Amino acid sequence: MTVDAGERLARVVMSRVCEPGDPDGCRWVAEESASELVARLRSGAYAERPKLADWAERLPVADYDTLMARADKVGARFLCPGDAEWPCAVEDLELLEGQDSRVGGAPFGLWVRGDGDLALLMQRAVAVVGSRAATAYGERVSGQLAYDCGQAGVTTISGGAYGIDAAAHRGAIASGGSTVAVLAGGIDRLYPAGNAQLLETVVKRGVIMAEAAPGCTPSKSRFLVRNRLIAALSLGTVVVEAAVRSGALNTARWAMDLNRGVMGVPGPVTSTSSRGVHELLRQPAALLVTDALEVIEHVSAMGQGLAPRKEGEVHSTDRLNERSRRVLEAVPRHESAPSASIARSAGIRHDDVVAQLHGLEALGEVSRDTSGWRATPR
Amino acid sequence: MTVDAGERLARVVMSRVCEPGDPDGCRWVAEESASELVARLRSGAYAERPKLADWAERLPVADYDTLMARADKVGARFLCPGDAEWPCAVEDLELLEGQDSRVGGAPFGLWVRGDGDLALLMQRAVAVVGSRAATAYGERVSGQLAYDCGQAGVTTISGGAYGIDAAAHRGAIASGGSTVAVLAGGIDRLYPAGNAQLLETVVKRGVIMAEAAPGCTPSKSRFLVRNRLIAALSLGTVVVEAAVRSGALNTARWAMDLNRGVMGVPGPVTSTSSRGVHELLRQPAALLVTDALEVIEHVSAMGQGLAPRKEGEVHSTDRLNERSRRVLEAVPRHESAPSASIARSAGIRHDDVVAQLHGLEALGEVSRDTSGWRATPR
Repeated sequence: MTVDAGERLARVVMSRVCEPGDPDGCRWVAEESASELVARLRSGAYAERPKLADWAERLPVADYDTLMARADKVGARFLCPGDAEWPCAVEDLELLEGQDSRVGGAPFGLWVRGDGDLALLMQRAVAVVGSRAATAYGERVSGQLAYDCGQAGVTTISGGAYGIDAAAHRGAIASGGSTVAVLAGGIDRLYPAGNAQLLETVVKRGVIMAEAAPGCTPSKSRFLVRNRLIAALSLGTVVVEAAVRSGALNTARWAMDLNRGVMGVPGPVTSTSSRGVHELLRQPAALLVTDALEVIEHVSAMGQGLAPRKEGEVHSTDRLNERSRRVLEAVPRHESAPSASIARSAGIRHDDVVAQLHGLEALGEVSRDTSGWRATPR
Repeated sequence: MTVDAGERLARVVMSRVCEPGDPDGCRWVAEESASELVARLRSGAYAERPKLADWAERLPVADYDTLMARADKVGARFLCPGDAEWPCAVEDLELLEGQDSRVGGAPFGLWVRGDGDLALLMQRAVAVVGSRAATAYGERVSGQLAYDCGQAGVTTISGGAYGIDAAAHRGAIASGGSTVAVLAGGIDRLYPAGNAQLLETVVKRGVIMAEAAPGCTPSKSRFLVRNRLIAALSLGTVVVEAAVRSGALNTARWAMDLNRGVMGVPGPVTSTSSRGVHELLRQPAALLVTDALEVIEHVSAMGQGLAPRKEGEVHSTDRLNERSRRVLEAVPRHESAPSASIARSAGIRHDDVVAQLHGLEALGEVSRDTSGWRATPR
């Protein structure tokens, strides 16, 4: 069911008057319509809904033509549910409604800018988020994760901020993969300014998107509300570095509530930049990951995308049974010993020790001389 | 029920002929007696138990007087179940019997050397284990953990090896706390030689102990069998650094099987020395810990020894409700703005914005001048 032209127009206006992620705004637009709400706002008929009085304050700056002109100027489009490019995953946010007092709800429209098709980009997407005040370690790991995700055809979603976010976008771009930045302000404001060039590249290699209308400034509360979109759009969220109070942990909590994968990359316990991640990883719902293969395994269907088991060094003695191994351990390496002394040392009866020694000789593990047996030097 | 003198003598002999942790040895001594087994060994009556033929190989070197002379020389004692100093926790190893093919069983005797009372030291004890090839980071964290455990009256158990083990023993000693080293060879051989001085200090500040008889050499298989004692003696095992194939992970698996706490200290994912710990921490049974408080919380009775919650920076705006916070966010910091423009920016109706501004002024968050309101500089 697509949204018709009149309703689409009203939703553009609503995206400016209503605070992004306002749960009442999200619900009322879905249950009634934006057209109905805008009509009431314009007529001042908001007696039974005091919140409409709040929204009415912004009517003077919520002109459809002005907003669309701003969007056109940067080549942005406004998506509504039912559009081919609409990322359906955000509708899961409806399920959380009323669960707690936090802001949030399924968005009724999204501003999008870029060459990518949002719905396609979201087929296999993972969020990589973390601190702005990242360490060189964190940026390196973040970039590598996104790079490897890109190589595996997985989109990296992040928030376009300095630090971990920027490193993630850059890694995805470097891999030739695609990346999506979800902004807290309008898509015509490439915030933070120092990442403007990076975000221009994201526009070419994926999309940037926002719930707030063009012209809106990013604010602290909008960052938190924006985080729910990052979590909802992704199959899983990976927190790379985060202090104890960090927006990235807020994204992880949204991901948890949405039953998405919640992952964290550990770091030194002596680094405050990893403290928040470690707190997260102490929760049973969060999974420690060390590379993209483990991330992809966690967000793939059961039995698919399995990460290879980490294998340690393989030793030539791995194939020996316990008894042969004990005999081999009892054979000296720097001198020869008679089989009787090896039997005593191994605590294995003499005739069996002799048989084992011959077997070990065939494997090249021991050799024989006139005074007995010795182990082959490593 | 204590062990009588004759049986004690036979157990000393058994501790030399039987490989430490041999499950048959442990079970047969418990079910029958060491006296009975030694009698059969001496008479060659081992037709129905071929393993006795293995053990018989060592009879020539298992002379009671020789073993006790070696023990006396270093001031060591032989403990049996029922002795006042016997650490009962090792008896939990009986519960694992027959569970898998690994060696292991409840020891029938332990060689102990040192000024501490083993049973007392084990009242509150935690194992801190890890790689011999430790990094500076790992040694620092290991030392700090053991130091803080010592300050809290918790004994640190480890294996006396280079790297993480040595750092743990040193940390415990530095704190004035006590520490226990469980050796793979005999207690008269301070292995590795480079840690001999450290182990002499452990003897003064706790105990060193071994299942193998005096004179026995440490061997690879004995290290693995020794690990089960470390796990069983401790309320929980903390792995600080471990490669993918590491004895420390073997200790953690024993701890898991014994329903003891299993903990790991994370490190950089770029460090191979932390790879094994990260593999461990990906298992639901293992808990990530970053300091001794978290270790102590995990091994304490429910609701006791709780670690303080990690708090981030506290901001002055934390006490504000969501509505006041949104008004404050809308107040410019570098210039003044009239309340009407703040209302539009905040999306909150004008009369309420004015009320909130006065409240925020009382809190010192905003100030007023002739052209409107501005936020107080941080």
